[in-house]
Amino acid sequence: MSNGDIFVGEVIGTAILIMFGAGVCAAVTLRHSKARASGWVVIAFGWGMGVLAGAYTAAPLSGGHLNPAVTLGIAIDTGKWDKVWVYLLGQMVGAMIGAVLAYLVYLAQFQANVREKGSSEEPTATLGIFSTIPEIRNPVANLITEIIATIALVLPILAFGLTKGLGESGTTVLIVSLLVVGIGLSLGGPTGYAINPARDLGPRIVHTFLPIPNKGTSDWGYAWVPVAGPLIGGTLAGLIYNAAF
Amino acid sequence: MSNGDIFVGEVIGTAILIMFGAGVCAAVTLRHSKARASGWVVIAFGWGMGVLAGAYTAAPLSGGHLNPAVTLGIAIDTGKWDKVWVYLLGQMVGAMIGAVLAYLVYLAQFQANVREKGSSEEPTATLGIFSTIPEIRNPVANLITEIIATIALVLPILAFGLTKGLGESGTTVLIVSLLVVGIGLSLGGPTGYAINPARDLGPRIVHTFLPIPNKGTSDWGYAWVPVAGPLIGGTLAGLIYNAAF
Amino acid sequence: MSNGDIFVGEVIGTAILIMFGAGVCAAVTLRHSKARASGWVVIAFGWGMGVLAGAYTAAPLSGGHLNPAVTLGIAIDTGKWDKVWVYLLGQMVGAMIGAVLAYLVYLAQFQANVREKGSSEEPTATLGIFSTIPEIRNPVANLITEIIATIALVLPILAFGLTKGLGESGTTVLIVSLLVVGIGLSLGGPTGYAINPARDLGPRIVHTFLPIPNKGTSDWGYAWVPVAGPLIGGTLAGLIYNAAF
Amino acid sequence: MSNGDIFVGEVIGTAILIMFGAGVCAAVTLRHSKARASGWVVIAFGWGMGVLAGAYTAAPLSGGHLNPAVTLGIAIDTGKWDKVWVYLLGQMVGAMIGAVLAYLVYLAQFQANVREKGSSEEPTATLGIFSTIPEIRNPVANLITEIIATIALVLPILAFGLTKGLGESGTTVLIVSLLVVGIGLSLGGPTGYAINPARDLGPRIVHTFLPIPNKGTSDWGYAWVPVAGPLIGGTLAGLIYNAAF
Repeated sequence: MSNGDIFVGEVIGTAILIMFGAGVCAAVTLRHSKARASGWVVIAFGWGMGVLAGAYTAAPLSGGHLNPAVTLGIAIDTGKWDKVWVYLLGQMVGAMIGAVLAYLVYLAQFQANVREKGSSEEPTATLGIFSTIPEIRNPVANLITEIIATIALVLPILAFGLTKGLGESGTTVLIVSLLVVGIGLSLGGPTGYAINPARDLGPRIVHTFLPIPNKGTSDWGYAWVPVAGPLIGGTLAGLIYNAAF
Repeated sequence: MSNGDIFVGEVIGTAILIMFGAGVCAAVTLRHSKARASGWVVIAFGWGMGVLAGAYTAAPLSGGHLNPAVTLGIAIDTGKWDKVWVYLLGQMVGAMIGAVLAYLVYLAQFQANVREKGSSEEPTATLGIFSTIPEIRNPVANLITEIIATIALVLPILAFGLTKGLGESGTTVLIVSLLVVGIGLSLGGPTGYAINPARDLGPRIVHTFLPIPNKGTSDWGYAWVPVAGPLIGGTLAGLIYNAAF
Repeated sequence: MSNGDIFVGEVIGTAILIMFGAGVCAAVTLRHSKARASGWVVIAFGWGMGVLAGAYTAAPLSGGHLNPAVTLGIAIDTGKWDKVWVYLLGQMVGAMIGAVLAYLVYLAQFQANVREKGSSEEPTATLGIFSTIPEIRNPVANLITEIIATIALVLPILAFGLTKGLGESGTTVLIVSLLVVGIGLSLGGPTGYAINPARDLGPRIVHTFLPIPNKGTSDWGYAWVPVAGPLIGGTLAGLIYNAAF
Repeated sequence: MSNGDIFVGEVIGTAILIMFGAGVCAAVTLRHSKARASGWVVIAFGWGMGVLAGAYTAAPLSGGHLNPAVTLGIAIDTGKWDKVWVYLLGQMVGAMIGAVLAYLVYLAQFQANVREKGSSEEPTATLGIFSTIPEIRNPVANLITEIIATIALVLPILAFGLTKGLGESGTTVLIVSLLVVGIGLSLGGPTGYAINPARDLGPRIVHTFLPIPNKGTSDWGYAWVPVAGPLIGGTLAGLIYNAAF
């Protein structure tokens, strides 16, 4: 795979992933959405099907990593590091584009996020649509959660042979997508499961700069946790894989 | 594939798709349905499994496009335009038949959609069962939503090789179905995700002419958005695919 | 396949199907169940995964029809009628065994289905756990619903080649299961989707004879609809398939 | 497969399974979880995707049994008993590790499980996150439920050929995962579906020893049911399989 193909694939694939993921958070969060308050099962399946859509599309170009933690785990496993920077660059650019696309899909909903006349309902803070917010703010516990949840993503991917090329098997894409559904359902409760540094950092940058009405804080004080946790988790998954398999 | 096979396949497949899709909207909307008020996850899976049922059935005859936006994207990709009119004709006829079938499945429920004696509950407007209605009526924003959501459908289909024949692989049908589940969950909140001109226009025509009690407006003023949006989206997906892959 | 294998396969497979299906209805209906009132999505997935479990198990022995309407559609398609009686006999016996198994799984719950001391809550009628009950009792409309919903089951199965042996492909089992999930979500609202004569008749017989506390009526006046509707639907699906494909 | 590979595979795979399963119970049960009170469908899919993640990962090393009842059923079918102890040891060790990992993922939530100032809400008993608790305590009925539900797991696995190596087919892993989703939805209502002695006993030991605030009883009086029931069920499944197939 050429650097150009990898970059384009990761940009498109990660943009699709984040558009679906931020999109489903917007769908469940914002007033005037048909999916408003439809619950955690919708969040978990929305993100999982985002992986399906993104990896599915990126597979022929880049193999569809869409996640620096996955790229890192694969690099540790295979020992090939020369393309890593291309993957990471594509993932960050793609994540930012995806967040903008989700904003555009829900444009009218974001613009309507104001206190309505005669209503006492406050506008909704929008950061949770873009990036993760822990339920209980405890950096050590939050970091542990993100590390373990990322191992639960990367170790199965390595074990089943994502490294051999995601594009070869539709079933593999499907299983990884359902794996992400499961991580959301089971391990997402405390921190909202970043498990992907680009997934959290890219949209947070977009949230900081986009002119969204009543958007509230971008909470940069927490931003290191969903970057460091998944990078540590991806590294540990690669090391566990090399030791055990 | 002969024109006859394509036409029959698209009629049957699109009829099944719309019967499931309009059916699940009836199931969740109408009084006296066992699935009443069962939520957005039911809507999204109902439409997704409609794609599975319809594409599954149409695949051996026509490849199972079931959607003018998909046909358009594939034509742009392959450069073959001579069969496009057969696909579109079949899709429109099928969509209308499917809407009638959903009406027949819920016949007793539609007939019971009257103000009951002593009740203050008004009959339910039924257009939302047949065609899409935006949560916030804003043609520019609604068009953007439909364009982006349709790209999110057609680009992955092109990338994974639907053009090589849907009938060859059960897994492909399954993945496209789950992709549609994901589009519903993530991108369906603002407009109800037409992402298919036939899916919206065919049932709207049926809604206009069927003698449904208390059916309310057919809202023809909005009808151009869920036709134009998906056609633009399918075209853009074809162009992006040709440029990037 | 020998008659013995077919019979054993259909008994085991249909018993598993009905155990899951009646089981999920018990799970959602009965007091003292962890899944109480968990909604229509649980019902639809429970029945769908029952098809998966039953067809999966029966496939190597009988091909896993589990449904007289499927057997009928396949016989019309292939013109082979000599084994049909073995399939039907196995399906009826299996359906009755499955209903008894579901009763045993929820034994303590059924026994606790009494008016509790000091409570005004009446015991729950249990027929809906075993057999279908229409929301609106209208034999013509109910029959139309069952006919169309059964065509939506059997026609895709024929088109995708169930007749070539379900056992050959795990993906086919999976897709048929999700098809049944979709039929439940989209077409199950009016009658509770029998779409299978054995699924309704076998458990109704068991409901009549089992000594369940406070079980209420077995409603034999409606019993012909979920038998006749699916048989007509399966026949029509076979005829449509032969004409169109 | 060497004893070392089997042990490592079963430890890792069962740890992942239990982490997902106990995790989803924590997600739905504990205050300050984003998935709080999200319902039975979340529980059933969380455990099912835990099977997917664990079996997926363990498959290349051990075939991914993750369950003494499955190992027992396979041993009865194949007549090979010499590796059984390695499987069981790995499963027990893995189940305990998985319970600790779920505790770590929800560390802040467990620590916040105290009566909050000025609130009358009592802390939540936590055993249900780790092990099963019957809705109605009736050892005979509970045992019957666990026996039948385990047959519904092991018999389909045997019939579809898990014994030929789970690692060979991603589709098989997927189907077994959805089978477990179905067992949860349909048969989990009365006892919470242990269907796996290691799944219940390992986490119960961990619950007994972990210093969890306000953890409540570990209920050892019930512990034999979710061990004996699945072992009997796995044995019966093996015998039925040998007789019928």
